[in-house]
Amino acid sequence: MENTPQALLQTARARATAPDFTGTFTDAVQGAGPLSGLNVAVKDLFDVQGYVTRAGSIVRNNTSPAAKDAKTVARLRRAGAGLIGHANMTEFAYSGLGLNPHFGTPMTPLFKDRIAGGSTSGGASAVARGVADLALGTDTGGSARIPAAFCGLVGFKATALTIPRDGAVTLSHSLDSIGVLTREVALLRPVLNVLRDTALIKSAMPRAVIVPDNFGMDDLDPEVAEAFEAALRSLSAAGIHIRRLNLDIFDRYRALPVWQFSAVESRGHHGTYFDNAPDDLDPRVAARMARADGVTAIDYARTLAARETLIAEAKRLFNETPIVMPSVAIMPPKYDDLRDDVAFDRINLLALRNTSFANLIDGCSVSLPISNHPGAGLMITASAGQDEMLVTMAESLQGVL
Amino acid sequence: MENTPQALLQTARARATAPDFTGTFTDAVQGAGPLSGLNVAVKDLFDVQGYVTRAGSIVRNNTSPAAKDAKTVARLRRAGAGLIGHANMTEFAYSGLGLNPHFGTPMTPLFKDRIAGGSTSGGASAVARGVADLALGTDTGGSARIPAAFCGLVGFKATALTIPRDGAVTLSHSLDSIGVLTREVALLRPVLNVLRDTALIKSAMPRAVIVPDNFGMDDLDPEVAEAFEAALRSLSAAGIHIRRLNLDIFDRYRALPVWQFSAVESRGHHGTYFDNAPDDLDPRVAARMARADGVTAIDYARTLAARETLIAEAKRLFNETPIVMPSVAIMPPKYDDLRDDVAFDRINLLALRNTSFANLIDGCSVSLPISNHPGAGLMITASAGQDEMLVTMAESLQGVL
Repeated sequence: MENTPQALLQTARARATAPDFTGTFTDAVQGAGPLSGLNVAVKDLFDVQGYVTRAGSIVRNNTSPAAKDAKTVARLRRAGAGLIGHANMTEFAYSGLGLNPHFGTPMTPLFKDRIAGGSTSGGASAVARGVADLALGTDTGGSARIPAAFCGLVGFKATALTIPRDGAVTLSHSLDSIGVLTREVALLRPVLNVLRDTALIKSAMPRAVIVPDNFGMDDLDPEVAEAFEAALRSLSAAGIHIRRLNLDIFDRYRALPVWQFSAVESRGHHGTYFDNAPDDLDPRVAARMARADGVTAIDYARTLAARETLIAEAKRLFNETPIVMPSVAIMPPKYDDLRDDVAFDRINLLALRNTSFANLIDGCSVSLPISNHPGAGLMITASAGQDEMLVTMAESLQGVL
Repeated sequence: MENTPQALLQTARARATAPDFTGTFTDAVQGAGPLSGLNVAVKDLFDVQGYVTRAGSIVRNNTSPAAKDAKTVARLRRAGAGLIGHANMTEFAYSGLGLNPHFGTPMTPLFKDRIAGGSTSGGASAVARGVADLALGTDTGGSARIPAAFCGLVGFKATALTIPRDGAVTLSHSLDSIGVLTREVALLRPVLNVLRDTALIKSAMPRAVIVPDNFGMDDLDPEVAEAFEAALRSLSAAGIHIRRLNLDIFDRYRALPVWQFSAVESRGHHGTYFDNAPDDLDPRVAARMARADGVTAIDYARTLAARETLIAEAKRLFNETPIVMPSVAIMPPKYDDLRDDVAFDRINLLALRNTSFANLIDGCSVSLPISNHPGAGLMITASAGQDEMLVTMAESLQGVL
């Protein structure tokens, strides 16, 4: 077979197998454009014209094929990218680990018998294995950054309003944002420029970063702690000042019932499945959707208002000085360790802990691999709209980390 | 007494009496700046350093005096405006009619025994009587525009994000926005430039406006219908094309449980008063706050998501072509006609009907007086951020209406 983009797309499609993919797109071709030559794994929650969007769930099997592409999918297609297929994910994107009882669970290629993370699980695995060059995903609490860390990839969570979510199945209207995963930092800028409403401008590197004293640094796996300290030494060597700060905003974040967003809003969007076909849902997803029953509108309005206060404060604090933390407190867990529901809940919450902060402050965030420490990620988080700063930092730190 | 700004402020303060004012500021002075010479009635929900912010309620009598000015108040003060006092309002700004059982009900000076409208009731009455030049108010469903129409004033509802709400007591976090009332269109631009985060730019007049066929035009008082048709004839004569359209967005707006926003969110903010001192609240406000008890977080999340869809659609529809409607379907009601609770509820809902649409679409809106038709207003509404267009239109139409 020739080595043309079209031939490479056919090869990628042939390699796009379960459990990383729930289906392939037989009609998409490689085109001309800034992303020509790149093959994309599309998370199963984005509409692709002519295909059913399952959102990782069998309850959507009888949904009509999408009448048109999601806006992000249309932009990738128009930029010449090759669309491989719908990549596997947690049902409705509702967990950070990527387990899926319907379609199987994608595993990280970095370690034996350990999970890829989620919810953008299949996309992460496909990119890490070289089946795809790019995964189009989402990030509601870490769904792009957790699997990026677990699979040794770059994972970028965009500021929610900068990339349209039209044609993407909603988990939490408040917290959902677009995420992308790649092997190469160099792809971030051209890919984001295709996906965003307005182009990125190169911005200055910040001279300092904040390492929280009172958040995100406890309960770290020893390998994660070691990787993070190595990453901080690299940042210092590159002339970036590390400010270890105890900030009140982190305590107030932890006091928020963050779980309400996805519980309440997923019931708002997927409540008919929950009401009519509860046994067809992943029991772990259904259990978390059920938590919404105990929440009153008044409670929820208070949570929303408290979040607005955090967003405003984060804009003051993290606009020019980003936060760095380990992307995930733990290394990729063993699949077998997640069979128990109590262990699953604990590990899932711990996996989401550090990443979710960016979603709560409506911010942007990037997880970068740390050399010699596969499976751990360095996460840089900034306030809403500072996506340019993060891309610039990721590019500058490429040789450093 | 001399005719200096400071002397005029003293005179204004001496005339600032109940029921239009709940208190005067004895220490504020007229300063230099773009608004020097203007005296301002500050709605009782804005913090003014050294004074208790009552939000029209006796339950807040024991609140500490404000430690600092609300951002809007600080900007007016810095621009040289004279702060007269706290102007009366509906308790917590929760109705469009302006009745207040604690401090009395401001009346329109245009007609005998008819109310000023609300919730910015005292500010409207004070500006209409010449006691103040400007009322700083809010608009959650029409609270600046309804009393503007009833009192023969210009009432402007700003796009929520363009003017900070810090230091203002919240009614509905989702729908609250800043509103201003003046006698003169010419004051809008300098006042908004002081209040806004970024200055207005003069924009082009739209060539057409939309008059809805399926919203806002039924149940009009004959005087309102006549005034509105006269205003449309003036617009046509000025070369503006009138497009009468039946738009699906208005039907979907009417299907929304709009009442949930203020009911749920006011309980979120003022719930402790509701729980601990229910008998001290205006019974009509308490009754509406009580409606939140029947709302689940899931219902409310659906309402919020439906609103986001409306906002996105409104941006496409009303960005360049604004909507015109009568500001209020009815002429100022007689105070005596509102003694009955059932009549009050019906008239309050009808008064809020046309104005609330702008709040739901996160838009901006202006109510202009119509010459020879005192008590009726022409309302122009556009999508979020089109405040400049509305100010330009208001200025251009000044000689026309």
